[in-house]
Amino acid sequence: MLAPDRLRALVEAHLEELALAPELGGLAESMRYALVGGKRIRAVLCLATGEAAGAEPEELLPAAAALELVHAFSLVHDDLPALDDDPVRRGRPSTHVEFGEAVAVIAGDALLAEAFRLALTYPTTAVARQLAGATLGMIGGQYLDITGRREDEAQLHRLKTGCLFEAAVSCALSVAGVPEREQGPWRAFGTELGPLFQIVDDILDGDGYVETHGLDGARRLADRAAERAQERLGEIEADTDVLSEIVGGLAARSA
Amino acid sequence: MLAPDRLRALVEAHLEELALAPELGGLAESMRYALVGGKRIRAVLCLATGEAAGAEPEELLPAAAALELVHAFSLVHDDLPALDDDPVRRGRPSTHVEFGEAVAVIAGDALLAEAFRLALTYPTTAVARQLAGATLGMIGGQYLDITGRREDEAQLHRLKTGCLFEAAVSCALSVAGVPEREQGPWRAFGTELGPLFQIVDDILDGDGYVETHGLDGARRLADRAAERAQERLGEIEADTDVLSEIVGGLAARSA
Repeated sequence: MLAPDRLRALVEAHLEELALAPELGGLAESMRYALVGGKRIRAVLCLATGEAAGAEPEELLPAAAALELVHAFSLVHDDLPALDDDPVRRGRPSTHVEFGEAVAVIAGDALLAEAFRLALTYPTTAVARQLAGATLGMIGGQYLDITGRREDEAQLHRLKTGCLFEAAVSCALSVAGVPEREQGPWRAFGTELGPLFQIVDDILDGDGYVETHGLDGARRLADRAAERAQERLGEIEADTDVLSEIVGGLAARSA
Repeated sequence: MLAPDRLRALVEAHLEELALAPELGGLAESMRYALVGGKRIRAVLCLATGEAAGAEPEELLPAAAALELVHAFSLVHDDLPALDDDPVRRGRPSTHVEFGEAVAVIAGDALLAEAFRLALTYPTTAVARQLAGATLGMIGGQYLDITGRREDEAQLHRLKTGCLFEAAVSCALSVAGVPEREQGPWRAFGTELGPLFQIVDDILDGDGYVETHGLDGARRLADRAAERAQERLGEIEADTDVLSEIVGGLAARSA
């Protein structure tokens, strides 16, 4: 079992060497720019879940990279002037600031299409189907976000953040060949991660859950979410130590 | 063998009844708006090719619809103010004019993700893989278009228009189960359709090939492209009468 930092290094190396479709030509530069600097939480989670379920990291890397590409696509489009109008991302100018809005729109499109190309390198449709479902859920969440229909905070975050975390787990299970009937406990674990990530994100940014529940309230919600995730891990019959370390890291992260 | 108009009616009915992911919520309205009014050339071509190769139209409809969704996605994003800034599409306000720019960006994203979900309803990855390759080629063509790197007009159109026409043929062959070694003549036919479509498009719009070759020159190019497509059909061992009618329609179209 590789530690989270080792898994992250594998992801970084894989993303750096990723061959993009040659037809994309000069667009590849903006796509690689958009991929730099992420924490790779979804990809690491995918690798750790898959390894715990019996797969080799190498088999899992295309799925893990696909998750990061979908995440990067969503950030590039979210940051556009018409949406969040965010000029900074991961400490650098957003893709649209660096390359212009037109290139950012189609760079995001290309990241999404490349994600599917990666997910389709597996012999079955399973990984790609889960990626498609998660992407649609995430976009549904973006829609709730931009239209201000945020009455149900939990539903918004379940879609916008949770779907891709759940896919990180379910894609790993597909690659590892875990039968559907045995996936329940793993998936139950996956559903706890989106809320945990989001609440901690809001604590770090001082918005969202902090606005609705206060700082102490949000901290309690985060701790409770981390506890639930750890409890779910206890119900899985496998060595989940690395996953447990990831949950601890998500709860305690400071960036 | 169903005539092109009958195939078009099947496509229309299928698109109208298409179940979109429930998580998309209110975004579905803008997606359906963007799908209205197309000529369905790519979908009809997919159905006609597949039927000629031995498949039932019903089996082909998800692939045909997926092609239309990818086409619609590309139009929605192409029309955005940052790209072509086109306020009118298919005789109505463009999606971003009707629903706002933010919704148009993510409606395009969702159309692309839904296209993959449809392509992934098949038991193998073949249709989705061809859709991913074609989408990436198309985006590469958009990049050449928006960055003004149009030195090679034929390459620009091969990517921006041709890839999706070629995918209409190759996806149909996958659904029909035509073995790879027998696909050559079909695929050769598919590569003639993008140029034919594009040249006629430019004749109708008075731009592109008309600017570089004059109206008569463009007309001759279109006729020659249609001849080549018919010649390719003659090399296919199947009843290609409907495909021949489609080629004739593409060459003679006035809208």
